[in-house]
Amino acid sequence: MEPIKSFELSKEYLESLREGIEIQDNQFITESLEGANVADIAAILDELNLDEAIYVLRLLSPSTAADILIELDEDSLIKVIREMEASELAALIDQMESDDAVDILILMPSKEREDVISYLQEKEKSANILDLLRYDEYSAGGLMAKEFIKANQNWNVVQTIEEIRRQAEKVEKIYSIYVVDNKQHLLGRVSLKKIILSSSDTKISDIYEPELISVPTHMDGEEVAEIMRKYDLESVPVVNAKNKLVGRITVDDILDLIREQSEEDMQAMTGISADIEESDSVFKISKARLPWLLIGVIGGLMGAQIIGFFEDGLSKYIALASFIPLVAATGGNVGIQSSSLVVQTLASKSVFNDTAWQRFIKGLMIAVVNGIVLGTFVFAVVVFIYGFESIFGLTIGLAMFCVVLLASFMGTVTPLVLDKFGINPAIASGPFITTANDLLGLAVYFGVAMTLLKL
Amino acid sequence: MEPIKSFELSKEYLESLREGIEIQDNQFITESLEGANVADIAAILDELNLDEAIYVLRLLSPSTAADILIELDEDSLIKVIREMEASELAALIDQMESDDAVDILILMPSKEREDVISYLQEKEKSANILDLLRYDEYSAGGLMAKEFIKANQNWNVVQTIEEIRRQAEKVEKIYSIYVVDNKQHLLGRVSLKKIILSSSDTKISDIYEPELISVPTHMDGEEVAEIMRKYDLESVPVVNAKNKLVGRITVDDILDLIREQSEEDMQAMTGISADIEESDSVFKISKARLPWLLIGVIGGLMGAQIIGFFEDGLSKYIALASFIPLVAATGGNVGIQSSSLVVQTLASKSVFNDTAWQRFIKGLMIAVVNGIVLGTFVFAVVVFIYGFESIFGLTIGLAMFCVVLLASFMGTVTPLVLDKFGINPAIASGPFITTANDLLGLAVYFGVAMTLLKL
Repeated sequence: MEPIKSFELSKEYLESLREGIEIQDNQFITESLEGANVADIAAILDELNLDEAIYVLRLLSPSTAADILIELDEDSLIKVIREMEASELAALIDQMESDDAVDILILMPSKEREDVISYLQEKEKSANILDLLRYDEYSAGGLMAKEFIKANQNWNVVQTIEEIRRQAEKVEKIYSIYVVDNKQHLLGRVSLKKIILSSSDTKISDIYEPELISVPTHMDGEEVAEIMRKYDLESVPVVNAKNKLVGRITVDDILDLIREQSEEDMQAMTGISADIEESDSVFKISKARLPWLLIGVIGGLMGAQIIGFFEDGLSKYIALASFIPLVAATGGNVGIQSSSLVVQTLASKSVFNDTAWQRFIKGLMIAVVNGIVLGTFVFAVVVFIYGFESIFGLTIGLAMFCVVLLASFMGTVTPLVLDKFGINPAIASGPFITTANDLLGLAVYFGVAMTLLKL
Repeated sequence: MEPIKSFELSKEYLESLREGIEIQDNQFITESLEGANVADIAAILDELNLDEAIYVLRLLSPSTAADILIELDEDSLIKVIREMEASELAALIDQMESDDAVDILILMPSKEREDVISYLQEKEKSANILDLLRYDEYSAGGLMAKEFIKANQNWNVVQTIEEIRRQAEKVEKIYSIYVVDNKQHLLGRVSLKKIILSSSDTKISDIYEPELISVPTHMDGEEVAEIMRKYDLESVPVVNAKNKLVGRITVDDILDLIREQSEEDMQAMTGISADIEESDSVFKISKARLPWLLIGVIGGLMGAQIIGFFEDGLSKYIALASFIPLVAATGGNVGIQSSSLVVQTLASKSVFNDTAWQRFIKGLMIAVVNGIVLGTFVFAVVVFIYGFESIFGLTIGLAMFCVVLLASFMGTVTPLVLDKFGINPAIASGPFITTANDLLGLAVYFGVAMTLLKL
């Protein structure tokens, strides 16, 4: 056995698979994919064109095809489900756990979604799906699956094992068995290990752990992720407002969520608008990148207007131009540092966090310290090394101090305000805010210069 | 039961706990913490001062104290272990799984580490720990635990359950049972679900799944995380060069690793040097933030030199100064976009990725498209809206084009080069590179201007 089973996942295999599809060598296709991990097959289908991918999916068993569908890139997935007949897609969705089914159905227009649901074989599954579709996609309710094992506290170990046997087909992975009372209220959990090590007639009520962390359906997915990380959970039960057990979230879904969200944050910070990868076409990538670049350019052009406004003063004191990049870069750096510290704190949500006011005061003090250090440093270099007169050094130093203060203020307040309005605070490090900071910095710089140098 | 058990975790409780410690009300302390989750207790101890935290730890049972120690912030943890006697610490480490023990021991100077290990009660544990200490902290070997359940393929279900019973104390969470041959070669896995649902005399060799993903000890932790995410694994076995099973990595450790690494990347991008939180003191935060700001400032001062060099030309054509921020900001934005796309691709490591050369050509084409669009746009605004002569518009437009090309090139090549040398490519979006890009951009801008405007 190889340390990592990535079977024949290679460009060469991809080529031979393409040929196999071309000449409809179905035997080669199915045999070469047999035993491969569904995530690997999905990675291959992502590389094929739509017709080829659908051709392969139709050759495989519904349960394998269903597992592959879940693992496809969102781009490929949307194309594939648009191409399939409602009945055909329903046959695959019949093989999925409810949360995966919902992840796919949510990508369809509601009319077609209803079509697919009407074709589902199991009444229970379509009820579960309709139930899950009510929740926000990124809330605990939207992340949870309705398939899990629960045991009544009055059962014994044998009855519980019977329930596991009954549900074994539907529930792929069992981490814990949730224990409920007669009214379905969540009481606690019992591990499979405990079940195995207890005698058959042991009552569940004697062995379950009542200390259990659960999350409400409305909790934000990011918060669920942080709870699962903090408490080392591999699955967490979801309860409704009446503390009735309605679903469970597993750690694999959380890993996907974390990855998605870190990509989104990165996107917010770099201003790349659409969900692109390096393998996309030149024009798709250019199109996704241009909007931010244009915002930055428009900001730069407005900056040119601001500087133009001070042109008279500038022509009298041409050296002022030399320090424009210094002021602009420092403002940008201070702003990004401040906002990312705030974003980090917002993400970790501790009860011991300072209040907004304390945070503001502290940010101000840090800005004052940094501003004094940097302002003094710049003053010293400008006067003693570059040999300018001291009033000019004072101008640049004071402008630095003001810009540091201003950028810290903007960098601290902007993410807090965004967060208050329910907007991802990471965009505070993105295009709009950065550009606005640059412009403010320029205005402050020239304002200080015009005043001190009496231009 | 509350939807989330965060017991009395509040500022008020923290105050009353402090009082309890002051007046040595041990009964209040132990009773109020009883049943609380260890992660919550750790969060409280992080808020206490060192003497208070140690006082509480010593009141609790060794197994609870050990669990809390693992969950402490690294800052607090280092202080606590420095304060404890070697024998006292050894008593706690005796209660931990080997990977957690190593995470703590690695923080100590090697002399003291040996002291602690010499006090350990279990010979097997100290052997395991010494073994794990050989691996790089962030490799699969450094992340794995030596505690896991393995079954010989020739055993039956009853023998396997016996083994689980024997190891139950040592192995906190059981996800899978790994199946080995007589020489300890990894053959596959069998789930607890399968064990429960099989009759007592079933042979393991008849029920285990041979399709199993394992990782080699030397694999980088980030890669392990990506494999566990991609294949939806809650634990992964680790094998040595001879495919012998030597450990297992669980998903909770991976969640911690992902968080640590995303914080590190953020740090690399924002240039905040030490591991700080918003709750740290004003001077600690200032000190951590100043180094990058200083790099930026020094870069800005060098920029002033560059511009000063062109001062004669600038005084003839004062409007050139107005467009300095435009050029600098665009260069910065293009550079960050390019490098973060490359970093994202490097992190996902697919076999279908383009080669470095293809990537380079593609990056160049994207840069040309973006450069033409932005250059033309700027030319049009400068000439038709701002009313400058067209040779000046051409100068600014062409300078934009060159800066976009240059920044794309630097943004693409830098992370690739860093990655080749085993350095975290995320720092390509950080202080040094950004500053270097700014300077290059300025030089290009004035170079183009001096040439076209014949200054």
